[in-house]
Amino acid sequence: MELTLEGDVVRAGYEARERFYDSRGYGKVRNGDIDLAPVEAAHLLYRGDIESIDGMDFRGFLGSAAVSEVDFAVYKDLRDRGFYLTPAREGWVDDAAGADFVVYPRGKGPWDNEVAYRVRIIGERDTAVATDLGGCVLAVVDEESEVTYLDTDRREVSGTSDAAVPATAGELLGERVVCWEPPAELYEQAFYGQQLGDDGAVQLSLVEAAYLTQEGMLTVEGGADAVVERGREVEGDRFDRRLAVYTALRASGVAPKTGFKFGADFRTYADVESAENLGHSELLVRVLPADHRFEPRDLALDVRLAHGVRKTMVFALTTDGGDEIEWVAVERLTP
Amino acid sequence: MELTLEGDVVRAGYEARERFYDSRGYGKVRNGDIDLAPVEAAHLLYRGDIESIDGMDFRGFLGSAAVSEVDFAVYKDLRDRGFYLTPAREGWVDDAAGADFVVYPRGKGPWDNEVAYRVRIIGERDTAVATDLGGCVLAVVDEESEVTYLDTDRREVSGTSDAAVPATAGELLGERVVCWEPPAELYEQAFYGQQLGDDGAVQLSLVEAAYLTQEGMLTVEGGADAVVERGREVEGDRFDRRLAVYTALRASGVAPKTGFKFGADFRTYADVESAENLGHSELLVRVLPADHRFEPRDLALDVRLAHGVRKTMVFALTTDGGDEIEWVAVERLTP
Repeated sequence: MELTLEGDVVRAGYEARERFYDSRGYGKVRNGDIDLAPVEAAHLLYRGDIESIDGMDFRGFLGSAAVSEVDFAVYKDLRDRGFYLTPAREGWVDDAAGADFVVYPRGKGPWDNEVAYRVRIIGERDTAVATDLGGCVLAVVDEESEVTYLDTDRREVSGTSDAAVPATAGELLGERVVCWEPPAELYEQAFYGQQLGDDGAVQLSLVEAAYLTQEGMLTVEGGADAVVERGREVEGDRFDRRLAVYTALRASGVAPKTGFKFGADFRTYADVESAENLGHSELLVRVLPADHRFEPRDLALDVRLAHGVRKTMVFALTTDGGDEIEWVAVERLTP
Repeated sequence: MELTLEGDVVRAGYEARERFYDSRGYGKVRNGDIDLAPVEAAHLLYRGDIESIDGMDFRGFLGSAAVSEVDFAVYKDLRDRGFYLTPAREGWVDDAAGADFVVYPRGKGPWDNEVAYRVRIIGERDTAVATDLGGCVLAVVDEESEVTYLDTDRREVSGTSDAAVPATAGELLGERVVCWEPPAELYEQAFYGQQLGDDGAVQLSLVEAAYLTQEGMLTVEGGADAVVERGREVEGDRFDRRLAVYTALRASGVAPKTGFKFGADFRTYADVESAENLGHSELLVRVLPADHRFEPRDLALDVRLAHGVRKTMVFALTTDGGDEIEWVAVERLTP
């Protein structure tokens, strides 16, 4: 069988079309023949279905500039898992932008009209722009060529945690605000702060105190400005981003608490009835500026941890100091 | 009972000594009376054991400059857990340096000669110098004033993974090296690399390949220099640090593999018999320059993840490009 590399396409004839496209979903039909992407041709070489391309065997072809080892690792892994898939080139698939492979549901192929995953490939040492995530599966190829799949999804956050709290007074002490005589609702129903001891005093974090002060539920000497100023002293710009995300979460009926023990900004409770009867927190939230670039290793760490504690990792991407927030959930996927 | 604040000490008389030191381990005896550290005096105020110091009640004293809210949070937490403890001041305890509190075993006190933990306190927003860790318990106070304890320990790494491997040849392809016809021992006994498919070819990571080339077990065009150069191209200085740690681990009889899925540099196997029969990997290793400053949140993330997958988090601190390596294990502790 004669196959030739022309630019970024491997041309093959009618016989190849029958063997590789019609029965196994390789390539793109063109005038009755097929075109193969180099990564597809490399896989056929690897399997021994074809012997050479322009005189190159598998070893020669993989070592050439025509095919990326990283793309090949993912292509092979998905084929090994029983999927048919097509390189996301213009004209080869609908909506090619933002993906490297379009993967069909098991048992389906390019001749069906269904897509299981839109896969984007990155190497462990590349970075991923935060706002590019959502609506695709990241296939991260690590230094040992193993593939980790991370499903990324835009989502909204919502809940029913919206207990009303009578206003109270607080005192700014270092990096916290203490309410010496708060209404019981503050902690017990609405789950703000922590009890200092048994006498009812509640200590609030700076972000909780800034929110409550801005909402008119707390008075502090110097007002909300004094709390926000203290927050910026100890956290810089990050404080404003965290406050914006905290405010958005509370506005959505979700109660955020510190995510420190999980290395995150917040863990969240969607349906708080009382502090005594909290239930499981559903999300871990990390606050990031929208122009953040993820190191895949950091993503893997966050997502693995969240999975281990039965929570979903959500990145809150803030623009313009928090005026706009986009929520991107990332979860491990085993295709 | 009359108590007065003098500088950083609260002076109290013989009666206080009987009530607070002799029976409950507060303070330091001085000429038959006792001195209390402000954090101890704050705790006595909080409990209602004393009413005021220089006219200040608990609220006034905690709000004064005399006592840190962070220190108080840890002191109270340890007392709540049933421990007696002493502020680590010169002259108050042996070997005060590097600790904030010396905590006695449950049921013991300052009059015994035993120490359970040497505790160092940091706030969530402080940083911890990597080389200061080891031999102490970090008590991290998060923004909600909850305390997380991290036990830090200098340690050595050792194992019995030392299978011999006949030399072979490899080809540098992008960010990996492929051995097309390796000896079976390479992967199967010594657990280097990953099998590319069923035909025996093994792909090595750059760090594995650099090590094997330097040890004379692998030949690559351009030698070890070519591999190291490629590593530096894609990872910068970090490649040299990782190679130094990889080399030290292998020299200690431990087989390192990528820790990518856990967000770490390596996971390690102390007793590899064969790739087929690996057992559980014991350590997660993160490689850092010795002058690294930890954000407590990053530490919490690493340690929590390691705990969840039943591994120990170890930081490999490298000096002078890897000539010296110190190993610090960090584990969660519930005192």
